[in-house]
Amino acid sequence: MSEISTKPQSGMRDFLAPDVVRRRHVLAVVQRVYESFGFQPLETPTIENLSTLLGKYGPEGDQLLYRILHRREKLQRALASGAPTEIDLADEGLRYDLTVPLARVVANYRDLPAFYKRYQIQPVWRADRPAKGRFREFYQCDVDITGTTSVIADAEVMGAVAAVLQGLGFADFAIHVNHRELLRAFVTAAGIANENEGLALIALDKLDKIGRDGVLQELAQKGFANDCGEALLHALEQAREPGALTRMAATEGPFQAPSRALAELLAVAKDGPAAKHAIFDPTLARGLSYYTGPIFEITCKGLAGSMGGGGRYDNLIGMFQKKPVPAVGFSLGLERVLLVMEERGMFPPLCIGPQVLLCRMGDVPADAAIRVATRMRAQGLRVEVYADAANMGKMLTYANTIGAPFAAILGTAELAQGTLALKCLATGEQAATPIDDASMFVNKRS
Amino acid sequence: MSEISTKPQSGMRDFLAPDVVRRRHVLAVVQRVYESFGFQPLETPTIENLSTLLGKYGPEGDQLLYRILHRREKLQRALASGAPTEIDLADEGLRYDLTVPLARVVANYRDLPAFYKRYQIQPVWRADRPAKGRFREFYQCDVDITGTTSVIADAEVMGAVAAVLQGLGFADFAIHVNHRELLRAFVTAAGIANENEGLALIALDKLDKIGRDGVLQELAQKGFANDCGEALLHALEQAREPGALTRMAATEGPFQAPSRALAELLAVAKDGPAAKHAIFDPTLARGLSYYTGPIFEITCKGLAGSMGGGGRYDNLIGMFQKKPVPAVGFSLGLERVLLVMEERGMFPPLCIGPQVLLCRMGDVPADAAIRVATRMRAQGLRVEVYADAANMGKMLTYANTIGAPFAAILGTAELAQGTLALKCLATGEQAATPIDDASMFVNKRS
Repeated sequence: MSEISTKPQSGMRDFLAPDVVRRRHVLAVVQRVYESFGFQPLETPTIENLSTLLGKYGPEGDQLLYRILHRREKLQRALASGAPTEIDLADEGLRYDLTVPLARVVANYRDLPAFYKRYQIQPVWRADRPAKGRFREFYQCDVDITGTTSVIADAEVMGAVAAVLQGLGFADFAIHVNHRELLRAFVTAAGIANENEGLALIALDKLDKIGRDGVLQELAQKGFANDCGEALLHALEQAREPGALTRMAATEGPFQAPSRALAELLAVAKDGPAAKHAIFDPTLARGLSYYTGPIFEITCKGLAGSMGGGGRYDNLIGMFQKKPVPAVGFSLGLERVLLVMEERGMFPPLCIGPQVLLCRMGDVPADAAIRVATRMRAQGLRVEVYADAANMGKMLTYANTIGAPFAAILGTAELAQGTLALKCLATGEQAATPIDDASMFVNKRS
Repeated sequence: MSEISTKPQSGMRDFLAPDVVRRRHVLAVVQRVYESFGFQPLETPTIENLSTLLGKYGPEGDQLLYRILHRREKLQRALASGAPTEIDLADEGLRYDLTVPLARVVANYRDLPAFYKRYQIQPVWRADRPAKGRFREFYQCDVDITGTTSVIADAEVMGAVAAVLQGLGFADFAIHVNHRELLRAFVTAAGIANENEGLALIALDKLDKIGRDGVLQELAQKGFANDCGEALLHALEQAREPGALTRMAATEGPFQAPSRALAELLAVAKDGPAAKHAIFDPTLARGLSYYTGPIFEITCKGLAGSMGGGGRYDNLIGMFQKKPVPAVGFSLGLERVLLVMEERGMFPPLCIGPQVLLCRMGDVPADAAIRVATRMRAQGLRVEVYADAANMGKMLTYANTIGAPFAAILGTAELAQGTLALKCLATGEQAATPIDDASMFVNKRS
């Protein structure tokens, strides 16, 4: 016996059949809804050039990247150099989100439609500290529209994500909406210098996790004067009050344009799926550095953290090509959605295991079992052949273990007559059935 | 503009919508057929402990593993040690196949059914030299049965893969079948020492790539006496002749038991999906070191290399736990299947893009477009809203670009009447249609 651990790596999971089936259930809804909005699928490689990934997620993000160690000559050269650093040892990394690969794709394929509407459902990897609902390998379900600054695009990505959640049975989620330009106006008004805006937003982004005092403490630690932090939080809290957005939109100055933009977005979305869920939240910051306009985040009662988020990022694609291309997107986090659905028992009955265990009696040759199973499968049935020779009791116990609702008993008598003794394991009902009527028997009782 | 390349990494690919749709078409058949055989899905993490992976694929395989560079303190420690080696810098790697993760899973979850029948469809990574049909990131579609040495299990994995290929429309594939014990008997009879069997098999595995002379040359390079290689190839070629398997099965000695096992397997499979495709091929070797019994490989006219392969590996799971567990499996290579289907034009018409482009005339407000699109989507239609303000000609050109077969024109007149001007772009037919009848109009003409 080896001493190798057989557990999955920290923060990663094996998905056995019941997990896979629940994940597929959710992903099927995501896919159907995203396609109903006219989004088309994209898949990108797991491994990206590190230079594609670095500098897009902020310094904290860069720290969480999985890097691929050089191989063969490249590794030998790096090691021979004497004192290699992290950057000498790797120039490839694992996908960290789905937005940066999209930006690369838009820059690479010049014949994409003027408005490229794509969805992408793939895992991403972050070497983060694992916690409840936070993994190192997890799926994101993204929709993005590139090539337009239209408010319709903002409303459509919000609508698509809202429609997915409704399609899954969620009613009580909120889509928090804010605007990076509005945040900037607040930050400036609080006396924080422009170059420190990023630091302030990273602290503010933790408001729901570490609370008001936690944010003030983090701002103080980062060297902001105490009254700056207090002024910022106070102003944001005031902006939360009813009518504040309308008031700011009516008042000339740096708050006006982004407030108007948000008011327009909420108005455009008012008869779509996001209607009852979208709320203006001036304290919403979002951690990622590439957002430029409206930003979004979904919360749900009882869930710490968010089920997804997004926003407008008009400068990111321009980092990969001469011409800037505006874009907006929304990312749904599969793991969080599953977590809440699990806790609330929101899954319909899901079943994909074998429906019938074919039990061959000892005197029936193996080729006959294969022949009969082939005929049953041709009727659309999911059939497992019990592989070993065993007595009936053992085989029926096994049928229960694998959750097969029916057993098909094949003895020499049945073989001679072209029948099966079909047994419904829940009721004990058993009937001699012609092989080609097996699916009729099963479907009538399923 | 940055100098970052926007191409995918060497040997990896971006899949745009038409690619994704073709891949999904194949995977849906794989999934349906595998489930009809009673296999249940499993997914395992991308990243595995390197000690799980190393030593399972032979030395050539170990060289092709992608390794994850240590981070933070672990990396600092490794670098501070002075002269770090590859093994000091990484203890995690990317999944190289789906068989070793399965073995780890079987060892880890002790409450799996006695016969664990699982299928797994996931990408794997190998830092191999890219070539036609050979990528560094590629999907495998595996079925395996653990916990039994029954010939039924061998026949069922062969049958499942054959049924998949038939389901996709393949008729002319061959499943080459051989037995590792039979190969061992041939190797021994050729005067090759037991401890060199592995080397001999690796050379023999290349027979279809480098030919008879190539294999002889490689054997000579590896230090085998010339007459050994010649004797081995000659004996294997003789065993290819009709009746050879029956003759060997009837003759006492080291060839008898594996020949009988193969003859039994072919007999058991004779009325299943593999029936017309399975052929005994004594030259089949398979590169991987963990096989112990029957081995399989699928070839197809016009395809260099194989579409998949597998075999029995009764000792691999025992490398992860005290108790050995027998197992047999078959792996289908998605990329090769796609390659052949592409070349032969085997795909049915596949379409998932938007069916309708909603064209909002300039005087119609954006929220009305969202409202109308929402009502069309509720009818099951896939609808894109043209995001910008534009004239009709530009919008209709765009509809063609994205392949939308219908345009829905929404002007103030239509808005007032609750209708749409629905236009079939192929025929030019246009009709005023109540919004809630849009799907009727579209479906009648699709």
